[in-house]
Amino acid sequence: MARIVMKFGGTSVADIGRIHNAAKRVQREVEAGNEVAVVVSAMAGVTNQLVAYVDETSKIYDAREYDTIVASGEQVTAGLMALRLQEMGISARSWLGWQIPVKTNDVHGKARIQDIQADEIIRRFGEGQVAVMAGFQGVSPMNRITTLGRGGSDTSAVALAAALKADRCDIYTDVDGVYTTDPRIVPKARKIEKISHEEMLEMASLGAKVLQTRSVEIAMNHGVRLQVLSSFEDKPGTMVVDEEEIVEQQVVSGIAYSRDEAKITLVKVADKPGVAAAIFGPLTDNSINVDMIVQSVSPDGERTDMTFTVARTDLERAVSVLKQNHDKIGYESLLSDGEVVKISVIGVGMRSHAGVAQTMFRTLAEKGINIQVISTSEIKISTLVSEEYAELAMRSLHTAYGLDAG
Amino acid sequence: MARIVMKFGGTSVADIGRIHNAAKRVQREVEAGNEVAVVVSAMAGVTNQLVAYVDETSKIYDAREYDTIVASGEQVTAGLMALRLQEMGISARSWLGWQIPVKTNDVHGKARIQDIQADEIIRRFGEGQVAVMAGFQGVSPMNRITTLGRGGSDTSAVALAAALKADRCDIYTDVDGVYTTDPRIVPKARKIEKISHEEMLEMASLGAKVLQTRSVEIAMNHGVRLQVLSSFEDKPGTMVVDEEEIVEQQVVSGIAYSRDEAKITLVKVADKPGVAAAIFGPLTDNSINVDMIVQSVSPDGERTDMTFTVARTDLERAVSVLKQNHDKIGYESLLSDGEVVKISVIGVGMRSHAGVAQTMFRTLAEKGINIQVISTSEIKISTLVSEEYAELAMRSLHTAYGLDAG
Repeated sequence: MARIVMKFGGTSVADIGRIHNAAKRVQREVEAGNEVAVVVSAMAGVTNQLVAYVDETSKIYDAREYDTIVASGEQVTAGLMALRLQEMGISARSWLGWQIPVKTNDVHGKARIQDIQADEIIRRFGEGQVAVMAGFQGVSPMNRITTLGRGGSDTSAVALAAALKADRCDIYTDVDGVYTTDPRIVPKARKIEKISHEEMLEMASLGAKVLQTRSVEIAMNHGVRLQVLSSFEDKPGTMVVDEEEIVEQQVVSGIAYSRDEAKITLVKVADKPGVAAAIFGPLTDNSINVDMIVQSVSPDGERTDMTFTVARTDLERAVSVLKQNHDKIGYESLLSDGEVVKISVIGVGMRSHAGVAQTMFRTLAEKGINIQVISTSEIKISTLVSEEYAELAMRSLHTAYGLDAG
Repeated sequence: MARIVMKFGGTSVADIGRIHNAAKRVQREVEAGNEVAVVVSAMAGVTNQLVAYVDETSKIYDAREYDTIVASGEQVTAGLMALRLQEMGISARSWLGWQIPVKTNDVHGKARIQDIQADEIIRRFGEGQVAVMAGFQGVSPMNRITTLGRGGSDTSAVALAAALKADRCDIYTDVDGVYTTDPRIVPKARKIEKISHEEMLEMASLGAKVLQTRSVEIAMNHGVRLQVLSSFEDKPGTMVVDEEEIVEQQVVSGIAYSRDEAKITLVKVADKPGVAAAIFGPLTDNSINVDMIVQSVSPDGERTDMTFTVARTDLERAVSVLKQNHDKIGYESLLSDGEVVKISVIGVGMRSHAGVAQTMFRTLAEKGINIQVISTSEIKISTLVSEEYAELAMRSLHTAYGLDAG
């Protein structure tokens, strides 16, 4: 007997027929003697319809009302799933965020879960009851409905799994697992059998859309064993587990990319203490996040070029903020480029293997691809290249690291 | 300055455009310096869609899940209305049943409101905030969402008005008031300016669909002044008020009819104590309500005919129950007739005016309409006639009581 959380995304509960199919998967786990909690998203399309209503109603909206409106989608699916399970002879009840409660902070629209009271759900496991929790939602200290941001139902599921000390959290979705890279770009991409939490976190942060980043963070912090699998096919998916569980560790597990990048270069800024603060302070004040930063070596010790990246959607605002602060920062000119892409190779094996970065640089050089910015962490190397080389770079790197499907 | 509750039904908030129109009516009341609470139904069609989902999912459903699902419709409208008011520069927030809370019993699907905690709403009136409450819903002692039955948003509005000690509760709908009778049947029907709670209660119970019966009961018990008016036209509707407020009382205020009737006659039952219990006991045990009852005078003092009405939808079951109990009851034969209609004249003036019943009987006799069953109360006289005479009877009575529009 195991205790498992099963999460079904929007496409897996898109209509009544699919809810029935999802319920059959739950039935199978129940009949295998497991204790089961189900977490459901809104039926595909519902959330978008609700958001469209909000947009039609008001230009700038109160996020508390927005949350009240959009959280209704998951409420409906939770009720329907509970009914369907009952119809199949399985004891089940729906739980809304405020009923459990799933306590969050009050940052509406992207609230963070602070606590889940799972005692009553566990008590009912003892009576053979399945818990069906509405994903994506919680309740604020002010007793208002909060939502957890796009993909938030993943986070709901993992947080519930942590609270339940579940043996596994299965994320049912419309793809059959996590791939070494985006198969739409690299046809030789392979499904990964097992990947560590840390690698998955980098993959998710760097553009792999299969799991919400926050959900992987929680899984990592609480050691929740995650599985990403298809709700339309009967086969194992990708397990996301603690590093120790992975016996044969690849040096590089995957390649991520993000087109959501833009590059800014400030030419000839003073090479002196305080200049970085003068540049990045005003950006932070305007809620513009800076990602990669590189400062060129100053030939004369007085002037240097500062290059960094921001989200592409923030580029225009960032440029405007920097121009407003021209006198305070002091630079000769400002260059910006929205046509760049960040490509990252990820693998915990890097820690113990030398030459991983060298393989990347050599591979890109062989194809004549210029690296504009480099940044590294313990388990990833990211490079910024011109967008037109994105596909070529990814395919070449996928081959170079031996990731191509047999 | 007055304190008012404004309730908008499904057709009044059927789409975003209509929500905007409804919000303009709220704005007008706010700008007149009033304290305003708004109660909203689901957007027209939404509840039916949700009920269809439930029906597709499960044959016999758990009413607690049903309530969780269908209550989401009002939740969405409440959020949208609050947003729209904010967009117009009016401070507003949505309130769900469990947030206020609107405490009900646990009879899911047709719960009764037990208490509404209106203190916080009143406090916020002081800060100029409009409360937008989701109608139709409450929360049970078990902390689950309950709903109040079809038309339940009327009841939400009146109960909130009572809790707020509001000066008026305006029910915005797709008709412009309460009519002396159904204008689709009697073209000369007139809109009533003022009607007493008691009369309105009879009208609602007897088939006038404009207000939920329970809402009128609460209004009567708490002295809530109700107004039924159109959300599409700018003119006064019908005021439902305490009898004392009505200076020029009509003898008869309106004529109601119900096609939801069926007649059963048990021929030659024993005319002795206990026979009524033997007949109606088994019906009650099967949740079949009996409405009008008439026992013919027994010519020989031994045998009598017993005639009564049940809801037309219960007719088949009632006949079957009575046949099963044939031996216990003891009757010669059973006649049933589903093609009857109950026509009632209603008016508090009857209490002080003689001859009201006589007018009814004479009018029907003049048209050759046979009265099958009669029942009376202090302020109404109901007759059962063959369905084919329904329109003729109603038009004739409308004229006879001087109700025709000038």
